Amino acid sequence: MSQTADAKFLEQAQLLGYSFEGDIKIGGNYVPLVRDGNHIYVSGQIPRVDNTVVVTGAVGVDVSLVDAQKAAKVCVMRALALLQRALGSLDQLQSVPRITVYVQSAPAFTQQREVADGASELLFAVLGEQVGAHSRTSVGVLQLPKNASVEIDLIASVRAA
Amino acid sequence: MSQTADAKFLEQAQLLGYSFEGDIKIGGNYVPLVRDGNHIYVSGQIPRVDNTVVVTGAVGVDVSLVDAQKAAKVCVMRALALLQRALGSLDQLQSVPRITVYVQSAPAFTQQREVADGASELLFAVLGEQVGAHSRTSVGVLQLPKNASVEIDLIASVRAA
Amino acid sequence: MSQTADAKFLEQAQLLGYSFEGDIKIGGNYVPLVRDGNHIYVSGQIPRVDNTVVVTGAVGVDVSLVDAQKAAKVCVMRALALLQRALGSLDQLQSVPRITVYVQSAPAFTQQREVADGASELLFAVLGEQVGAHSRTSVGVLQLPKNASVEIDLIASVRAA
Repeated sequence: MSQTADAKFLEQAQLLGYSFEGDIKIGGNYVPLVRDGNHIYVSGQIPRVDNTVVVTGAVGVDVSLVDAQKAAKVCVMRALALLQRALGSLDQLQSVPRITVYVQSAPAFTQQREVADGASELLFAVLGEQVGAHSRTSVGVLQLPKNASVEIDLIASVRAA
Repeated sequence: MSQTADAKFLEQAQLLGYSFEGDIKIGGNYVPLVRDGNHIYVSGQIPRVDNTVVVTGAVGVDVSLVDAQKAAKVCVMRALALLQRALGSLDQLQSVPRITVYVQSAPAFTQQREVADGASELLFAVLGEQVGAHSRTSVGVLQLPKNASVEIDLIASVRAA
Repeated sequence: MSQTADAKFLEQAQLLGYSFEGDIKIGGNYVPLVRDGNHIYVSGQIPRVDNTVVVTGAVGVDVSLVDAQKAAKVCVMRALALLQRALGSLDQLQSVPRITVYVQSAPAFTQQREVADGASELLFAVLGEQVGAHSRTSVGVLQLPKNASVEIDLIASVRAA
């Protein structure tokens, strides 16, 4: 029998070495996700675990590609943790039509897609090739909230009841 | 009896000290909003009132946090003015699944979320806690059209007829 | 009898001087587009033709406005080529609710909207004023994958069967 997405989520959390069982804190006056029919819009997530942003600075100078990929994975894990709490189980997800990956970049850093591959790999690992398939945009920005190295938002769709 | 969203909109315009009754001018060859079923996609709005972009420059050097928050409010007021004209009344809105807040940032400025709080507060003030609840992404970009300090786009959903 | 969108697409390809009949290569571990009900989310496209990104560098210093507009057109042609292959014909498109245009910008370059006009003109030229009407956001970012000058993503809607 195949593993549930929730079990794979826990496995990825262990691989990353972080727990996502605490509060998923967000800064500011908005909501972490909005349900819109069978879609859920998840607010931009930075690689924050509990009270600490675990990867900060510009990728390409302050931060290596490998660490930026890890940051991207933490952002997606936060998004998935929010979805799991909202839905009861990640097995309720039907697809992830869009993710947008903002990378705080050094001026000469042009591997935003390679950073975003960290996010993509995590989505595939937890949700599988079919549900985890997503369209993606990755861009290099000047700054991000709290000096985070990566910020990711996404739109997920939910199985019809 | 509770105030309508349109009355609250007018109240916020007065608080900001701007009128949004003139043309909502956009630059370029596209449309300010597109209706897609029960959703409306509003194009990126800069803090332009009539012919003037009222807040310009990089936040953190040229522009203070407080002025940037005001810029964010003007962007959202423009978006709401466009929605009001398209729908007849802001009371037709059902929700605001997503806003994206682009902040022209100085390299060391990391309070993009605090800037975006201006937008969020305005949405809550006009639409209330339920309709105004939104998912949000805020990022720091290098430049924006016409040197605007903030640009905001959003997706709104409309009550089914 | 009016020309089909597919014929107009071919005409625009010839005007640009590029063929979009080869593979539409994307970098990284994701999919170029995701169908979501009657919507299709197209991943961020850079101005890549076969293996070459044809316009690179920061607009305003390395790249002129005219070349950046051409880059924007190539991005949209790639998106349309992907949609054409997925749907069989561009005449299946019903609307383009949103395009987002990321422009790799020099610090003082503030004509992101004029760059985006290249994308808008191409959408109108291929899809006509009604189907091609789109909401739009254009921002100036620090860097883009492979040093591309422009990156564009979009959401298209498809005629109900």
